[in-house]
Amino acid sequence: MVGIGPGDYREMTVRAVDALNACDVIVGYHVYVDLVKEHFPDKEFHTTPMRREVDRCKLALELAREGRDVAMICSGDAGIYGMAGLIYELLGDEGDIEVEVVGGLTAACSGAARLGAPLTHDFAVISLSDLLTPWETIERRLECAAMGDFAVALYNPSSVKRRDYLQRACDILLRHAKPETVCGAVRNIGREGEAVEVMPLAELRDYEADMFTTVFVGNSHTRVIDGHMVTPRGYRDV
Amino acid sequence: MVGIGPGDYREMTVRAVDALNACDVIVGYHVYVDLVKEHFPDKEFHTTPMRREVDRCKLALELAREGRDVAMICSGDAGIYGMAGLIYELLGDEGDIEVEVVGGLTAACSGAARLGAPLTHDFAVISLSDLLTPWETIERRLECAAMGDFAVALYNPSSVKRRDYLQRACDILLRHAKPETVCGAVRNIGREGEAVEVMPLAELRDYEADMFTTVFVGNSHTRVIDGHMVTPRGYRDV
Repeated sequence: MVGIGPGDYREMTVRAVDALNACDVIVGYHVYVDLVKEHFPDKEFHTTPMRREVDRCKLALELAREGRDVAMICSGDAGIYGMAGLIYELLGDEGDIEVEVVGGLTAACSGAARLGAPLTHDFAVISLSDLLTPWETIERRLECAAMGDFAVALYNPSSVKRRDYLQRACDILLRHAKPETVCGAVRNIGREGEAVEVMPLAELRDYEADMFTTVFVGNSHTRVIDGHMVTPRGYRDV
Repeated sequence: MVGIGPGDYREMTVRAVDALNACDVIVGYHVYVDLVKEHFPDKEFHTTPMRREVDRCKLALELAREGRDVAMICSGDAGIYGMAGLIYELLGDEGDIEVEVVGGLTAACSGAARLGAPLTHDFAVISLSDLLTPWETIERRLECAAMGDFAVALYNPSSVKRRDYLQRACDILLRHAKPETVCGAVRNIGREGEAVEVMPLAELRDYEADMFTTVFVGNSHTRVIDGHMVTPRGYRDV
């Protein structure tokens, strides 16, 4: 299970590169396969479409049971909203396949690096996708994150079918956070068309995110310094 | 600002390796400098002791102002409890030094990969160190994380002066989470003596963590599968 990071080959770990070089076959969602293909031209690739995660994992396990050394790639980190958990669930207690999880840069980390340092203190990571999670659970987590004054990274802030989700999320956060709370958005991290924006929470409410955007909400101490979004590590003056 | 990941050279990103190869001088806490030194033997290294973070950043800025290309290394990710925020704070709006943050594998990601997939769903990252944060703030965040049924990664769970902090944290989590909540601890991630343990929250309360341990607390759906700590990505049956 190999996390390939945000997309740029250079943001893969050395261990991930080694794993892809060493394996027999690479399985993944076609968008991620396209991102790595040119760097591993001699490999056998298998792709499945979006939302066919279970099929993709079953395919990887099938190939492994045939004795192949399979690298299943995920964007970001294979364990953060990735397929690592699903592979363990599908394997159950049979344990006939040896699984190794190779970590990667999740969007919270790679996106934060583009904005400055928004996650230098305690933070929460929340996905706004309600495909596999009841919206009430997401709402509750947003509310608790705001009550705890966590900095927050929001994954999957929007899609064609969920246009107003980011707005709904901001409205929940605004119950506890000030409208001027420093926020940021990073689009296409490590890919063509990378774009970064810093704005107050009141403005984030009307921001048009897409499915390649990661959104950051600061805590009550987050500041804008020379255009960067910065959450101080502590409350001691420097 | 270069995150070097958990410690093993192979878990650095290609971009971090490139940055350390390209720079003139490497600045860091001596433990982290010792971890990378052998791979970059021709570099000039500067170290400062623990807790001298402000001095370390000032030294890096001083060297940069002399025209040197400085890589400041942090363990994990430079932006997660790392020095990236402090560098921006010290620079202020002067902006006379160009800063680039190179992300790295933070312990939440590298530790999770060792345990299985404990962070596949929404999670919170909380440091138990009260050196720079009032304990009341930490308590409040623990309580909110538990109320939101977040999986949690706990950084700095213990030290010589804070022996009972993990116990105090568990007691707060236990106000909302069940004693059988699946938890895990990873010691010396990516370094000599790496060790992994999975246990219920009631047992974590009496676990002896040290300052090189990262602790993971599952959400209400986290399970043990074949010895691994796994948080399902969604609530749909597979």
